[in-house]
Amino acid sequence: MKNRQWLLRREPKGHLSADDFELVEREIDADPPLGSGQILVKNQIFLCAPAIRGWMSSDRPSHVPGINPGDPIISLGGGRVVKSANPKFPVGASAYYVGQWADYQVIDPALTDARVIEPPLSLFEGVGVYTINMMTAYAGLVYVGEPKAGETLVVSGAAGSVGSAALQIGRIKGMRTLGIAGGREKCDWVLNECGADAVIDYKKGDVAARLAELCPNRIDVFFDNVGGDILQAAVDNIAKFGRIVLCGQIASYDERGPAPGPRDMMQIIYGSVKMQGFIVTDHPDRYQAMLADLRQWVDGGLIRHREDVRHGFENLPSIYAALFHGENKGTLLAVTDDEVMHKPR
Amino acid sequence: MKNRQWLLRREPKGHLSADDFELVEREIDADPPLGSGQILVKNQIFLCAPAIRGWMSSDRPSHVPGINPGDPIISLGGGRVVKSANPKFPVGASAYYVGQWADYQVIDPALTDARVIEPPLSLFEGVGVYTINMMTAYAGLVYVGEPKAGETLVVSGAAGSVGSAALQIGRIKGMRTLGIAGGREKCDWVLNECGADAVIDYKKGDVAARLAELCPNRIDVFFDNVGGDILQAAVDNIAKFGRIVLCGQIASYDERGPAPGPRDMMQIIYGSVKMQGFIVTDHPDRYQAMLADLRQWVDGGLIRHREDVRHGFENLPSIYAALFHGENKGTLLAVTDDEVMHKPR
Repeated sequence: MKNRQWLLRREPKGHLSADDFELVEREIDADPPLGSGQILVKNQIFLCAPAIRGWMSSDRPSHVPGINPGDPIISLGGGRVVKSANPKFPVGASAYYVGQWADYQVIDPALTDARVIEPPLSLFEGVGVYTINMMTAYAGLVYVGEPKAGETLVVSGAAGSVGSAALQIGRIKGMRTLGIAGGREKCDWVLNECGADAVIDYKKGDVAARLAELCPNRIDVFFDNVGGDILQAAVDNIAKFGRIVLCGQIASYDERGPAPGPRDMMQIIYGSVKMQGFIVTDHPDRYQAMLADLRQWVDGGLIRHREDVRHGFENLPSIYAALFHGENKGTLLAVTDDEVMHKPR
Repeated sequence: MKNRQWLLRREPKGHLSADDFELVEREIDADPPLGSGQILVKNQIFLCAPAIRGWMSSDRPSHVPGINPGDPIISLGGGRVVKSANPKFPVGASAYYVGQWADYQVIDPALTDARVIEPPLSLFEGVGVYTINMMTAYAGLVYVGEPKAGETLVVSGAAGSVGSAALQIGRIKGMRTLGIAGGREKCDWVLNECGADAVIDYKKGDVAARLAELCPNRIDVFFDNVGGDILQAAVDNIAKFGRIVLCGQIASYDERGPAPGPRDMMQIIYGSVKMQGFIVTDHPDRYQAMLADLRQWVDGGLIRHREDVRHGFENLPSIYAALFHGENKGTLLAVTDDEVMHKPR
């Protein structure tokens, strides 16, 4: 059978371009031999996460996944098991895993963070609401940010998938919440749907001054998805014993430049501030506890979540690139199989 | 009686200069009226700490002490109580406190972090070994660094008062310890007297490459007194889940520039690294516990401590400036009263 696959043609410089990717089509065995524990999956949906952009960079740290020119694109995704040598992943089950931008692939669940999506959770929910973005927000805010009721939380990238969840979890924890987002539509969504106490449109200018105005008692927890000038604006307004949750630095991902830290580390020292990076897979033992809390909050209507669902395997590079231009509204999902046509939430 | 006092003449720019200070001499009442709880002290010894330099800077954060042009210089120091309206501070007792570069002053112990130095501790010990520097090392390494036996600790400014104590506390906690210091004499002292497993002379060049060579399993805890390029070199070699204890950024104190953070915060995110600032007064409730541990270690010969004792009230500015030129060897103490002539340890 035919198998399409996207490869990295060349290391992206500056803005991602469709020319950075290459679509190849190969004949593969529809009934391939499987090693013990392996499964053949039909990929149906991909989560477009900023991290993938970093993996394509040649100056990434050595201990993160790498996508070099000629390599398949790696992405969290989900699909259907079509052949199995693993009793935990029976034929017909839906699963999510760290896969590739390909129609089909053989994976080893133990090596790809794979999990079966148990009904009543749908494939959409498993890849959209309950996987890496929501878990990232939870792990970052709760385990790194150490939220306390009555404190002030500021979230950058607050209309994004991770940011909007972090802000709402802060609200559930009894914090005063402020979001930073770009443009009226996003700001309105953060304010009206996510229940933020206030929102700052960074496209309107001086974020530091707005933060000073809106946070007279300064910022206790800053959940940062953006980095750069926005991080600096928050550092300028951080409270004594403040915590800065370093989740992402999307301001830097699509340019050929690193994301610099604060201009003056003495602010961090004098303030006894904690800045801490994390990735969601730091906490595998806490997965079930996080999922239980999140399901309760989502089912109870306490967390608003929105998805931006786009279609077409052949459009994967352009769908993914939308993430870096502030075009997507909510969790960006790319559906690549006509079997999965509807969005249940 | 006559009272000499050093004031800040102007905000220092670049290197500290004797012209930044102004010596004034005034007649004061030898038997001044005291408010309830106040004491009159004769200052005898001052601890030269890098923090004072930051207090003189007009772009300091608003929540730290400020020394503006015309103000007296603030410094941790110690002396003898000569008049008292406070039963806890009887006449004749030795005490340390946050004082001024002055012969005499009236202080309120409650507002100046004052403590009586109880015999058998001498004034030298109270101001030198057991006050702010050793406590800073302890609080930073233990409470912020979370040391674990078998881990690798790297300390910058390792021949300094705080750095050498942090390194030795790490050694006591069972860590592998590496010091970074400048010049052969200091490096030898860190290696031979403090018991470091290895030492890097930053004056010989590429610190990042040396760290990579000496830390094949990377750095678990970096205790930073220096900042700038040295901080970056450590970030380049930090381990997954590494902790960076932000104690000082002395590279920046004596120049008119801030101490920038890491060049690429993605290294902090990918590594799930914690960078945390602190000041010793964050932990007043832990003071007695810290002192008990430290006395046991110092008395047991587990911690080597050295003092660089200089003399003369009129030399205070030049003594203090030595701190920023790497000239002092150990805790820099300025003795300003002939009563205190000898160094007991």
